[in-house]
Amino acid sequence: MREQLIEAAVDYFHEHGFNGSGIKDITDAAGTPKGSFYNHFDSKEAMAVEVMNRYADSRQMGMLADESVPPVERMRKHFDYLAADLERFDYARGCMFGNFGAELSTQSSVIRDEVDTKLARWASLLAPVLKEARAAGSLKSDMDDPLLARFLVSSWEGVAMLAKVTRSRAPIDDFFAMFDSIATQDRRRTKKR
Amino acid sequence: MREQLIEAAVDYFHEHGFNGSGIKDITDAAGTPKGSFYNHFDSKEAMAVEVMNRYADSRQMGMLADESVPPVERMRKHFDYLAADLERFDYARGCMFGNFGAELSTQSSVIRDEVDTKLARWASLLAPVLKEARAAGSLKSDMDDPLLARFLVSSWEGVAMLAKVTRSRAPIDDFFAMFDSIATQDRRRTKKR
Repeated sequence: MREQLIEAAVDYFHEHGFNGSGIKDITDAAGTPKGSFYNHFDSKEAMAVEVMNRYADSRQMGMLADESVPPVERMRKHFDYLAADLERFDYARGCMFGNFGAELSTQSSVIRDEVDTKLARWASLLAPVLKEARAAGSLKSDMDDPLLARFLVSSWEGVAMLAKVTRSRAPIDDFFAMFDSIATQDRRRTKKR
Repeated sequence: MREQLIEAAVDYFHEHGFNGSGIKDITDAAGTPKGSFYNHFDSKEAMAVEVMNRYADSRQMGMLADESVPPVERMRKHFDYLAADLERFDYARGCMFGNFGAELSTQSSVIRDEVDTKLARWASLLAPVLKEARAAGSLKSDMDDPLLARFLVSSWEGVAMLAKVTRSRAPIDDFFAMFDSIATQDRRRTKKR
C-alpha cells in the first residue's frame, strides 16, 4: 500500500504541485482509504521527500557514467532522455525538482534542502563528463567544468519551466542550440587501416 | 483599498506562492476586512494577473532601451538590477514569473498565458540589445539573437530558482560567468584627439 501511495503521489505532485495536492487526492488516486496515509507517512512533506527520491531514480543518471559512449554524445543522450520525459506529458509538468524548488523553498526547509542536494548531485555527475569532453578537445566553452555543469543544470531547470509555460518544445530546442554552440561532435574513433 | 490589496498581494504571493496564500492572509497583510477582497477582484486568479503586471513594472525593462549605455554594459546592468532584487530577499523569493509558471501552469491557463506573455516580452526586449552588441563586435556566441535572448531568459529563470533553493548568489555568479564567456566588454568610444 505504501508503494501504491508513492506511485500515486509522484504522479499527482508532478501534475498539481505540492500545495495543489490534498492527501485525499493522493489516497483516492492510489485507491486506498484516506486513513492509510498516516500509517505510512508522518506528513505530506515526508512523503514529498520519498517522491523526490523516486523521481531522482527515474532520471537514469547512470547514463552519465557510461564511458562506452563518447562524452558529448553521452550528455546529449542524457538531455534527450530528459526532454523525452517532458514530452511524455506534453511539456505540461516540467521537472519535479524545479517545481518543488520554486513552490516550496520558503515553505519547507526540508524540501528545499532535498532539492538542493538532488540538483548538486546532478551537477557533480555532469562535471566529469565535461572534463572528459574537454580532454578530448570537444568543448569550446572556457568556463570551468564544475561551473559549466552547474549552469547546465540551472538553465535546464529554466528551460523545463518555460516548456511548461509555453506547452512546447521550443525552449528545449534553445537549450540544445546553446549546447551545440559550446560542445562540438565527439571525434570519431580512428578506424583501423 | 484596491491599491493596498495589490501591494500586499505582490509581497505575499512572492514569498508564499499562489496556493500558499489565502485570501484572508492577503487581506490581513493589507489591513483590510476579508470581505473587501471580492469588492475589488473577481477571484484570486484575477488578482494574480494584476500582481504580475505590478511585478513586471518593477523589472525596469526600460533600462534595456537606454541607448546612451553601450549594449553589453546595458545588459549587465539589467541583470545586475534583477540580481540585486533577488538579494533584497536573501535570494529566498526567486522570480515571480518563474514561481507562478512552475506552480500554476497546469492549474490555470490564464496565469500560464500571462507568464508566457511576460517572458516572451522580456526576450523581445533583449534581442535588439544583443543585435546592437553583435554589430559592435562584442558578442562571441554564434547563436542567433532572438534565440540567445530566449535562452538568457530561461536560464535566468533557472538561476533565480536555484538561488532560492541554495539561498545564495552562487547560481547568479554562474550566470554572469556564462554571460562574460559570450559577451566581451563594449569597446571604449574613441576619444577625441
